[in-house]
Amino acid sequence: MTVIDQMWSSHPQVDEGDTSELVRRCLEACVECAQVCTVCADACLGEEMVADLVGCIRLNSDCADICAATSAVLARQTQPDLAVVRAVLEACRTACAACAAECGSHADMHDHCRVCAESCRRCEQACTDLLAAL
Amino acid sequence: MTVIDQMWSSHPQVDEGDTSELVRRCLEACVECAQVCTVCADACLGEEMVADLVGCIRLNSDCADICAATSAVLARQTQPDLAVVRAVLEACRTACAACAAECGSHADMHDHCRVCAESCRRCEQACTDLLAAL
Amino acid sequence: MTVIDQMWSSHPQVDEGDTSELVRRCLEACVECAQVCTVCADACLGEEMVADLVGCIRLNSDCADICAATSAVLARQTQPDLAVVRAVLEACRTACAACAAECGSHADMHDHCRVCAESCRRCEQACTDLLAAL
Amino acid sequence: MTVIDQMWSSHPQVDEGDTSELVRRCLEACVECAQVCTVCADACLGEEMVADLVGCIRLNSDCADICAATSAVLARQTQPDLAVVRAVLEACRTACAACAAECGSHADMHDHCRVCAESCRRCEQACTDLLAAL
Repeated sequence: MTVIDQMWSSHPQVDEGDTSELVRRCLEACVECAQVCTVCADACLGEEMVADLVGCIRLNSDCADICAATSAVLARQTQPDLAVVRAVLEACRTACAACAAECGSHADMHDHCRVCAESCRRCEQACTDLLAAL
Repeated sequence: MTVIDQMWSSHPQVDEGDTSELVRRCLEACVECAQVCTVCADACLGEEMVADLVGCIRLNSDCADICAATSAVLARQTQPDLAVVRAVLEACRTACAACAAECGSHADMHDHCRVCAESCRRCEQACTDLLAAL
Repeated sequence: MTVIDQMWSSHPQVDEGDTSELVRRCLEACVECAQVCTVCADACLGEEMVADLVGCIRLNSDCADICAATSAVLARQTQPDLAVVRAVLEACRTACAACAAECGSHADMHDHCRVCAESCRRCEQACTDLLAAL
Repeated sequence: MTVIDQMWSSHPQVDEGDTSELVRRCLEACVECAQVCTVCADACLGEEMVADLVGCIRLNSDCADICAATSAVLARQTQPDLAVVRAVLEACRTACAACAAECGSHADMHDHCRVCAESCRRCEQACTDLLAAL
């Protein structure tokens, strides 16, 4: 049982159910991806060939900011506005797909880009799964 | 000339043009709206009738987070990914429209909600205008 | 091996060592605490007695924002400025201590506040441990 | 009258007074500095000599995150915890001073760094002034 499970088990507006499991998984994926993208931008910045990684750093930064905002929206369970939840999930899915493609294109040169691409793909899938259930 | 104009006038990847004026206006609207929504959530929290404003506080918080992420994406001009920019603008437009409707519905009781609804409408329009130009 | 371990094991500026283990633990504690505080603010907002929890929601929000900023600073390992790292850790420690005291004071009434107080205490300790090592 | 003045003039927990003028000025400085540092990191990333600006990009990113967290704390006026407000202002002052020194050291080569250094100095001063009044 994660600490978020513990929080939600005592949350006055959360009841048990399948949707809330998908929300939890998507929340975890967004939190992880925001962190991983922040670290990937920083790792790229620390590479000797940083000039070749400018586009990757840019996308990492955008993806980190969008995943962080999405995780904050998903963390809230009191009176959600479904149109807003859907819209931010769509943005997150788009950002993760773009960042996964960019990081994936040089995953063989930088292992941090490979790990980041995988985290972005997991987050993209978690957003897609949650969107399908909403 | 704002400080962001000063920054962009010396930015190696920004050239003068109509699009960049729309970007600047949208960036300013997002920065303002993020702040205003944070203050509106806090002002609602400080009202005696806070129990009636729970949905408003929730939407203010989501809108603030999404506007802040959007402003960070727009502030960056180096190698933007247009699909990501568009997706976050769509999310921002949706969040601002929802928050404007909620705040607008009790604008006559709380002047901070009236001012917030207006800021959300300006930001929604700025996102719409920029989306049309991209 | 967490995904952050995987990222740092391929990071060009991270080398193995005790400090980096303390950094990783503090980073994890900040990320968790930011999430938990966001959920606690939302859970308090969803309680019938929300009017009695205004101070808690306020502190949760501040603590979430400060933990998130601290986690971003700690996630970066390229050319850190130690004075900045120390200053943000001090702010994080102070915010976590204040939020732990507030949530702890009504932990028997709301289990989400008990869990949040514990997360804040862990983060406060992780900041203290890292500050002692820097 | 700025939109934040309009918000605070209808805020149930804000009363007129000198402190609140210092808070408003510091809030504005933090919001501006967060934006300017985000743009400066991006402008440095877009320079041909990006490899020489890695330390500047790193500090810009930290300073942007810390200024953003500080602006969120200052934007809230309901039941503030003075120890938390002070601690985040100290962190912000330290980050702004470090970023101003770094950007200032190559202000003659990049005008965006000159403008950013000035914005950081204004924010550092606004934090110092507010800390003296609290």
